Amino acid sequence: MGTETSSAGRLLVISAHAGDFVWRAAGAIALAAERGDPAKVVCLSFGERGESARAWREGRTLKEIKGIRRAEAEAAAAELGAEIDFLDAGDYPLQETPELVDRLVRVYREFTPAVVLTHTLTDPYNGDHPAAARMALQARVLAQAIGYDAPGEPLGAPPVFFFEPHQPEQCDFKPDVLLDITPVFERKRKAMECLPAQQHMWDYYTDLAKRRGVQLKRNAGPNLGLAHDTLAEAYVRVYPQTTAVLA
Amino acid sequence: MGTETSSAGRLLVISAHAGDFVWRAAGAIALAAERGDPAKVVCLSFGERGESARAWREGRTLKEIKGIRRAEAEAAAAELGAEIDFLDAGDYPLQETPELVDRLVRVYREFTPAVVLTHTLTDPYNGDHPAAARMALQARVLAQAIGYDAPGEPLGAPPVFFFEPHQPEQCDFKPDVLLDITPVFERKRKAMECLPAQQHMWDYYTDLAKRRGVQLKRNAGPNLGLAHDTLAEAYVRVYPQTTAVLA
Amino acid sequence: MGTETSSAGRLLVISAHAGDFVWRAAGAIALAAERGDPAKVVCLSFGERGESARAWREGRTLKEIKGIRRAEAEAAAAELGAEIDFLDAGDYPLQETPELVDRLVRVYREFTPAVVLTHTLTDPYNGDHPAAARMALQARVLAQAIGYDAPGEPLGAPPVFFFEPHQPEQCDFKPDVLLDITPVFERKRKAMECLPAQQHMWDYYTDLAKRRGVQLKRNAGPNLGLAHDTLAEAYVRVYPQTTAVLA
Amino acid sequence: MGTETSSAGRLLVISAHAGDFVWRAAGAIALAAERGDPAKVVCLSFGERGESARAWREGRTLKEIKGIRRAEAEAAAAELGAEIDFLDAGDYPLQETPELVDRLVRVYREFTPAVVLTHTLTDPYNGDHPAAARMALQARVLAQAIGYDAPGEPLGAPPVFFFEPHQPEQCDFKPDVLLDITPVFERKRKAMECLPAQQHMWDYYTDLAKRRGVQLKRNAGPNLGLAHDTLAEAYVRVYPQTTAVLA
Amino acid sequence: MGTETSSAGRLLVISAHAGDFVWRAAGAIALAAERGDPAKVVCLSFGERGESARAWREGRTLKEIKGIRRAEAEAAAAELGAEIDFLDAGDYPLQETPELVDRLVRVYREFTPAVVLTHTLTDPYNGDHPAAARMALQARVLAQAIGYDAPGEPLGAPPVFFFEPHQPEQCDFKPDVLLDITPVFERKRKAMECLPAQQHMWDYYTDLAKRRGVQLKRNAGPNLGLAHDTLAEAYVRVYPQTTAVLA
Amino acid sequence: MGTETSSAGRLLVISAHAGDFVWRAAGAIALAAERGDPAKVVCLSFGERGESARAWREGRTLKEIKGIRRAEAEAAAAELGAEIDFLDAGDYPLQETPELVDRLVRVYREFTPAVVLTHTLTDPYNGDHPAAARMALQARVLAQAIGYDAPGEPLGAPPVFFFEPHQPEQCDFKPDVLLDITPVFERKRKAMECLPAQQHMWDYYTDLAKRRGVQLKRNAGPNLGLAHDTLAEAYVRVYPQTTAVLA
Repeated sequence: MGTETSSAGRLLVISAHAGDFVWRAAGAIALAAERGDPAKVVCLSFGERGESARAWREGRTLKEIKGIRRAEAEAAAAELGAEIDFLDAGDYPLQETPELVDRLVRVYREFTPAVVLTHTLTDPYNGDHPAAARMALQARVLAQAIGYDAPGEPLGAPPVFFFEPHQPEQCDFKPDVLLDITPVFERKRKAMECLPAQQHMWDYYTDLAKRRGVQLKRNAGPNLGLAHDTLAEAYVRVYPQTTAVLA
Repeated sequence: MGTETSSAGRLLVISAHAGDFVWRAAGAIALAAERGDPAKVVCLSFGERGESARAWREGRTLKEIKGIRRAEAEAAAAELGAEIDFLDAGDYPLQETPELVDRLVRVYREFTPAVVLTHTLTDPYNGDHPAAARMALQARVLAQAIGYDAPGEPLGAPPVFFFEPHQPEQCDFKPDVLLDITPVFERKRKAMECLPAQQHMWDYYTDLAKRRGVQLKRNAGPNLGLAHDTLAEAYVRVYPQTTAVLA
Repeated sequence: MGTETSSAGRLLVISAHAGDFVWRAAGAIALAAERGDPAKVVCLSFGERGESARAWREGRTLKEIKGIRRAEAEAAAAELGAEIDFLDAGDYPLQETPELVDRLVRVYREFTPAVVLTHTLTDPYNGDHPAAARMALQARVLAQAIGYDAPGEPLGAPPVFFFEPHQPEQCDFKPDVLLDITPVFERKRKAMECLPAQQHMWDYYTDLAKRRGVQLKRNAGPNLGLAHDTLAEAYVRVYPQTTAVLA
Repeated sequence: MGTETSSAGRLLVISAHAGDFVWRAAGAIALAAERGDPAKVVCLSFGERGESARAWREGRTLKEIKGIRRAEAEAAAAELGAEIDFLDAGDYPLQETPELVDRLVRVYREFTPAVVLTHTLTDPYNGDHPAAARMALQARVLAQAIGYDAPGEPLGAPPVFFFEPHQPEQCDFKPDVLLDITPVFERKRKAMECLPAQQHMWDYYTDLAKRRGVQLKRNAGPNLGLAHDTLAEAYVRVYPQTTAVLA
Repeated sequence: MGTETSSAGRLLVISAHAGDFVWRAAGAIALAAERGDPAKVVCLSFGERGESARAWREGRTLKEIKGIRRAEAEAAAAELGAEIDFLDAGDYPLQETPELVDRLVRVYREFTPAVVLTHTLTDPYNGDHPAAARMALQARVLAQAIGYDAPGEPLGAPPVFFFEPHQPEQCDFKPDVLLDITPVFERKRKAMECLPAQQHMWDYYTDLAKRRGVQLKRNAGPNLGLAHDTLAEAYVRVYPQTTAVLA
Repeated sequence: MGTETSSAGRLLVISAHAGDFVWRAAGAIALAAERGDPAKVVCLSFGERGESARAWREGRTLKEIKGIRRAEAEAAAAELGAEIDFLDAGDYPLQETPELVDRLVRVYREFTPAVVLTHTLTDPYNGDHPAAARMALQARVLAQAIGYDAPGEPLGAPPVFFFEPHQPEQCDFKPDVLLDITPVFERKRKAMECLPAQQHMWDYYTDLAKRRGVQLKRNAGPNLGLAHDTLAEAYVRVYPQTTAVLA
């Protein structure tokens, strides 16, 4: 498809809750790992209040739920070949604070990502997602300034992509990048299966990968030798693509 | 910048008037030629009525003006290494007709482009530009259908890019691709100089290339070893990018 | 008009200032009351600083003004058949705080609305209106989470409607629901007359009801037996309508 | 869901090609039929050139292909309980002409629909779809004018809904109505199976119905006693809803 | 309000039907006349089919209706101090043709307007309005080209304003200019009264002028000595304002 | 250009950092000064962290950098004939606080501007710019309320204009006002030269002024006797223009 599959550089995923990166970006993460590019997931919270309904109904304590979500997310990240950190900033609501933004600046300065993935800026179903996105974007800009007081060198300008929300149209999510994840889909499926409390999501996101794969083939044209069952993830590019070739 | 500079395939540029491709897409054309990718420009008209004010003021006839514009455009295309065709469909206004669309379908089927460049769909200063874009897009879709009665095989799905209009914001032109044309800018400048009646545009579009180059560097980050005086052209991608790697 | 007039469920109106619900949503409230559906208005502030110019010019104290606004709003709510609460959070500016959002979560959990009305998210003339809307929407999402620590059961997904701002086009207010308030307009008028300091608004919002009524008839078609002088309120639906019938 | 399931009136579906109404609106049609509301499908073309790739590859003639598509569409319509007409106006491209619009005016005047379904106004993958939508909308307005010279009485103002295109986000399709088609999904499946040349679509649109069903449940809230496997179709409402109750 | 009331130059109003200019732009026309600026109205049709329901119900012939509409419009134009022309191009639908555009080019070249008023480009209730607007805009651009074959000198770049449609929000009409018509409102009222078949519109557009007047005062601020009952018309500016002073 | 050049009233410029007003609004400021209208610049910060890369690379302390930026900005303001204040609220990030908004309310009440200039509400490259704009807009509304507890009289409704950001399209900056700054460009150039650390910007913004000048001439038409080398600044008007004449 006109793009090499050699190194694309270090991949950073900033996620509001512990499970988001699995459903929405596991393909991109596994592709990075397969290429040998370091990948890191930062979860701002565990999704302990807003995305753990089953555990609450089972009568678990807050501490137990955090532990469960952490263990699941760690297993999924391991499956994908990524490291994972938890900032434990609380969810529902995830509060935007200068301190949390500062922690993210330090993540950028230390990890020096070449590519960044995060949530959309609009999500009428979940306020934590845009809050995470706003902080991820703000911290990226701050990390670029030599005058910002944090360890490390000023960051470059890594491209940012929004991964797909649950109800894309309601979130003004108009995909402009379709990523072929066929070679790594099995790893995505296994990572999803690390989250047993949300078993209904396994098939849901497998179906979504098929749908996005059909669209990828439609946009790539019939002549490219793509697999019959191409599977894809959809993304929105935030900043203009810089390139030496139109393709 | 995360993209190789080997072949990107055959490049087709569909232009309303004889000069448009020079100001707006000469860099992309020259890059294709340098890579050895065939490039073809199709001018729907000569711009004989709407973009030849000086010749009219000098008292030239319609036939003379067409000849002048043709010669200039041929010289510019030669400078860039592209072939060029003129459909002579008339301008101001460029009329949308099924026949003209059909001629474009045949161009697609014959040339089999891998990438297509054309005008924006909005331009409140020049109705011919969106008319050309609408026909270019419609013909591309028709050429994809095996049932469409024209010679050749059904077309694939070549990506389409809008090149930059004269007043970008008024045309809802929000660039999402910045193309580095530094290596071929001298050829673009020489191609522009093939159009002596519009000498004031030479510097204007040189300045624009600088401005877009500054933006390219800003979006690419400081660590990429880009030239101090990077020069760029801006584009809008019409269909989602299909890719095997996020970068 | 293809919709029954039996119970639509409990109605919650979240209003930045004490008078907003009268001008903008009194018809919907009175319709609920006529159907026997409980209706509740929550005023985040009294509008004591930003919407009480006459009282300030008369030299009233802050405390007096709050009292006046409270009494007026209570009278209007009584006229419409709704209960009313005041959170006294201060206006101009209405500050968004986690504590105020939490109070709204508790309102949702306790009142369990089936329908919610609030301000638009954009209003360049009054920052309190979008602040109220953001908190109303955020609290509704939080109240849905079983893990959110507040009394009561998790909330369902009551539809939300924005009521009409004073300068609709400047607030990106594009009505997609026109509500026939003809049967209850007299109650709306009487409720408006409970606010004597803003007498110029009585006719203004009567005229608006006529205008929206003309539009309702235009969109409903001539064959529906609507009253000659149909009166209406305009709303914007925030989440997709869920239905068993297209109409 | 706050809406009755008694008669919603006569349903008219205006479709560019012979198969569109099956994938995109079969649920709405079957629901109408189950309610006893007359439903009529008007196909502007058979999709003989643009949507019959397999038949062309098999070497069929144009006349044969039209016959195949007609027979399939008639079988699907019968399965759904709708009558169907073919205007045979040609596809790829479907030409907009005053004569074709006039034919649609006569359809409106004769059938007197209470609800109209058609394509979106934007579709970068298929120019026939927006062409059909533009003509459907224009004819509806013309049919309302007593001075328009066609048999029958002036039309009322039936609401119009856009049904879902193949790549919704690229078509600016932001659903604002989710229609529960669970009770009639088996009929939709059987109607789809009347189109054997597009067998890959059967599962594709079954998966889509599941996805839209999940979204319907998410927007309707957990308390409504919806089926576990709710299935839905998504629509966009073109004109404001007129109603006597907010719900 | 920071703008002089001396000559603003020649005013051209391009209207789809005979009555449009009265309801929507009579204030601007009367202001021009009071300043001594020549004003001309061009009606593309009489609105004989789409906007003459009462006459059709009374059993008038097409010819009679055209005559009635012409006489009414001439009387209204005379009241406002404008000349008026009728192109009699037919309505419902108003067909876009190169010939009709050419006639408008000649109007531009002959009248040489300094300011142009026309309909919005979007109107889901009346397709003739956007058709008129598209032709008015296209002809203006063509008239600017020295190479366009029509008598007269190339046109300058007169600013264009869209006047207010009947359902502004549905037509994406977001006013950015509010014109004080208080001094000439009596003339507007008399011009409206020249159209007796649409008597219900007289008060409707008087109310609208009050509403836009309230908005004008709100946007102009309290310190400007505006009349208590300021009356206004709303417009949308199509091209950027060019100015020597920000105000 | 249809607008007088007599007094337009007191001009207030609210700028996130010390240099912004020079690059983006120096022409408007110098024009005000030439007319004798008082002009005041309020810098919320010195840009000490985010826009002083060279000084940080030279090893300066924070205090030194603030001093350098202050001196440069004071020199530029003096060149333009404006007074200047620094609120020293810190940058990168510029925190939005009620206290800072309150300070701006007091600026409005004391300076009583007739026109306000500030940043755009969107800027994906610099979060301080939209933060400054939000506070500038919020404070303007608060200052209008008699009930807001700050010295001075309630503010009128001064129009607000956004000045041009560095990457206009990415900031949704669609200019609707082009201001002719030809008569004062030399002063703008000298003001820019007061900022020696950003020497590369001098030519960049000179080129931009040429580009915007070309667009101004294109929108004003050829008949206005504008200078061959017209220079301009671009702005976006936030509230509707109120006027007694369309021009």
